[in-house]
Amino acid sequence: MQSTCKDCDLWSCALEYCTNISQLDNLNEILSGMAISEEEASKDAARFGNLFERLVDDLTGDDLANPEIKQAALRFKEVLSYNVPHGKRNRGLSVISSFRYLASSSQLTDANLEKAMVLGWCVELLQSYFLIADDMMDQSKTRRGSPCWYLKVKGHDAINDSFYVEAAIYKLLKKHISSEPYYVNILELFHETNYQTIVGQALDLMTSETCEGDNNLDRYTQERYDAIVKWKTAFYSFYLPVALAMYMVGNLDKDSHENAKTILLEMGHFFQVQDDFMDCYGDPAVIGKIGTDIEENKCSWLVVQALKRVSTEQRKLLKDNYGVDQAEKVSEVKRLYRDLDLQDVFYAYEEESYERLMGTIDTRSGGLPKDMFITYAKRIFKRKK
Amino acid sequence: MQSTCKDCDLWSCALEYCTNISQLDNLNEILSGMAISEEEASKDAARFGNLFERLVDDLTGDDLANPEIKQAALRFKEVLSYNVPHGKRNRGLSVISSFRYLASSSQLTDANLEKAMVLGWCVELLQSYFLIADDMMDQSKTRRGSPCWYLKVKGHDAINDSFYVEAAIYKLLKKHISSEPYYVNILELFHETNYQTIVGQALDLMTSETCEGDNNLDRYTQERYDAIVKWKTAFYSFYLPVALAMYMVGNLDKDSHENAKTILLEMGHFFQVQDDFMDCYGDPAVIGKIGTDIEENKCSWLVVQALKRVSTEQRKLLKDNYGVDQAEKVSEVKRLYRDLDLQDVFYAYEEESYERLMGTIDTRSGGLPKDMFITYAKRIFKRKK
Repeated sequence: MQSTCKDCDLWSCALEYCTNISQLDNLNEILSGMAISEEEASKDAARFGNLFERLVDDLTGDDLANPEIKQAALRFKEVLSYNVPHGKRNRGLSVISSFRYLASSSQLTDANLEKAMVLGWCVELLQSYFLIADDMMDQSKTRRGSPCWYLKVKGHDAINDSFYVEAAIYKLLKKHISSEPYYVNILELFHETNYQTIVGQALDLMTSETCEGDNNLDRYTQERYDAIVKWKTAFYSFYLPVALAMYMVGNLDKDSHENAKTILLEMGHFFQVQDDFMDCYGDPAVIGKIGTDIEENKCSWLVVQALKRVSTEQRKLLKDNYGVDQAEKVSEVKRLYRDLDLQDVFYAYEEESYERLMGTIDTRSGGLPKDMFITYAKRIFKRKK
Repeated sequence: MQSTCKDCDLWSCALEYCTNISQLDNLNEILSGMAISEEEASKDAARFGNLFERLVDDLTGDDLANPEIKQAALRFKEVLSYNVPHGKRNRGLSVISSFRYLASSSQLTDANLEKAMVLGWCVELLQSYFLIADDMMDQSKTRRGSPCWYLKVKGHDAINDSFYVEAAIYKLLKKHISSEPYYVNILELFHETNYQTIVGQALDLMTSETCEGDNNLDRYTQERYDAIVKWKTAFYSFYLPVALAMYMVGNLDKDSHENAKTILLEMGHFFQVQDDFMDCYGDPAVIGKIGTDIEENKCSWLVVQALKRVSTEQRKLLKDNYGVDQAEKVSEVKRLYRDLDLQDVFYAYEEESYERLMGTIDTRSGGLPKDMFITYAKRIFKRKK
C-alpha cells in the first residue's frame, strides 16, 4: 500500500512500514484490535487539514476588519499559511487519535472531536513558533522543502512573527476551549511545555557553541544528549499531544500522566535519534531540509556515537573538522562516520529501541490503552522523513 | 526635593515635577487627599525591589538543583538579572499603587500586597521579553545604560532568552496566583496584552521598513502613529497594570474596564510621544539608550509633526535623509526639526495633553478613584527618562 497524502502519513506510513520491519509481522493482529479504522483515521486527517483555514479566519478575521491593524493581520495571515500547515502534522494528528482511544462513547461527539482538532493545531502552532526561531538561531536555509521564513522576510522581523504564532495558541484556546472544565489544565500544560522546550533549546545552543580554535569534544556526552532530546523535543512532540487528550477526557490522575510521560519520552528519544540520523543520511528532497548538524557543531546522536568508537587519531580528525561551515571539513566528518559504520550502529539501535519501547509500553501503560502507544510508535519507526 | 533612588522614580519624580510644571500647583492638595502616603509608596518600592531576588529563586531554584538542566538555569538566571530589574519599574510599581487605591481594607493584606508585587514583576518580565527582541529587530546598541543583551551573547541565542523571559511570567503566576479566583482572568489578560503588543510591533516594523532608494514618507500618518502607539505600548504599559489590580479586587465589570482603558490609553499615547521626543532630544546618559529612530526609519511623533509642517523643499530634504544610518544624514534631519521648532511644538503639546487627560479622567473614571489615575499621570508628565 502506498501513501496518497503528501502532508499526512498517519496511516499510510504504518502500513508502508509493515512491509519493511520485522517486528511488525503482527500488524494485522494489532490493526484488528484497534479502536480506529484506517478509513476513520484518514477522514480525521482530511477534516483536520480543512479546519486550518477556519482557524486562520478565527485568528485574523476581526483584525482584518479593523483598519487600524489590518496591515499587521495581513502579514500574520501569511505567517500562518507559510509556516504552520506544511509539516507532517504527526503531532497534531496524535491529539485526535489519542482522543479517539481515550474518550468514552458519550465523550466521542463531533463537537469534542473538533476541539481535539483545535488542540492539534495548537500543538502545530507551538512547533511552528519554535521552528521559525530555531532556524534563525541555527542559520538554517530550508525547512519543509522551502526557504526558512526568516530568509523570506527582512530577517530579524521574523522574531516578532514567531511571537505571533505562539500568541495564536492562546487566542484559539480562549475561543474554542475556555468554557470547558479542562481549560486551565490545558493552559498550564502549554505554558509548561513551552518552558521545557525553551530549556532544551538553551542546552542545545550552549552545547553547540563554537569555541574559537578549541573545539571541546568532551561536551558531547550521552548524558547531555539525553537531556537535550528530552527537553527540546520529547515533551512537546510526544507527551503534549497525548496529555491534551487525557485532560479532554478528564484524566487528571498524576500516576497516569507519569506513566504516559515515561513511555512517550522514550519514544521521543528514539524519534530524535532518527532525526539526527536523517540530518546526515536523509535525502533533503524527502526530509524537506538540508542538514547542518555537523557545520553547526550540534550535539548529534552521531557525534556522540562516534566519540564512543574513535581511535586517538580519529578523535583528532573529528576535533579538527567538526563544527566548521566548510564543505571539505563536513565531508571529512562524514567519511569518519562511514569508517565507524555508524549507519549499521543506527540500524541495530533502531531494532533494539523498538523492542525496549514495546517492553516499556507493556509495563507502564497502566490503565491507558496500549494500542494508543503502539499506534503512535508505528508512525515513527522506520519513518523516512 | 530630589530623587534618591536611581532605579525607581515613583514618588521622587512626582515631587520633582511639582517645581516645574504649572498645572501641579495643587500637588499638596492632591497629596493630602490621596490614599497612599509618600512613605508608604517608598516602602512599597523597596519591598518590590527586594522581592526580585526571591522570584529569581522561584524561577530557577528547582532547575539549578537538577544536574540535567543546571547549565540552562545558570544562563537564565543571568538573563533575568541583566534584563529585568534595571528599568524605572514604573509599570510594576503601578500594579501595587493601583491595588492600594482599589482594595477594600479587608483586601489590603500583606499577602495580597505581595501578590500585587508578583504581578508587578510579571509586567516587568513582559516588558523585558519585548525589549530583548525589539533591540535585535531595531539593531539597537544600548538599553538602560548597558549594551543590549543580544550584543553581550552569541547574537541570535538571545531569541531563546526572550522566550524564556516570557515563559517566566506563567511560571510565577502558577506558583503565586493559581489558587486565586482571578487566576484565569489574569492569564487571559497577559495572553491578550502579549498579542496586542505583538500586533503593535508588527505595525511598527512594517511602517519603518526601508524601501531601497524610495523612502515613502506618505506612510508616516497620524493615524498610523496612533495605532502603533496604542498597540505596541499603551496596552501593556498603561492598561495592563491597572487592569491586573482591578481583577485582584474582583472588578470584572466590562464598563469599568472600558473606562479605565480609555483613560490609560490616552495616557499611554502621551507617554510614547515623550519617548519619541527623548529619543531625539534626551540625554543618552539619562535615558539609558542612544536614540536610533531617525536612522531606523521609525514612524516617530517627530517625523509625523515635521511632515505636517514642511515646505516642498524641506520634504525633499527629509526624503533624502530620513532612515539612513549615516551621521551626517541624521544631523540633517535634526537640523530640519530645529528649523520647524519641533521642541516648542512638543512643549505646547505636552501642556495641552495634560489638560485633555485631566478632562478625560474627570468624565470617564466612573466608579474608579480619580486619584489613582492622577497619580499615574504625574509620574509621567515632565519625566526626564
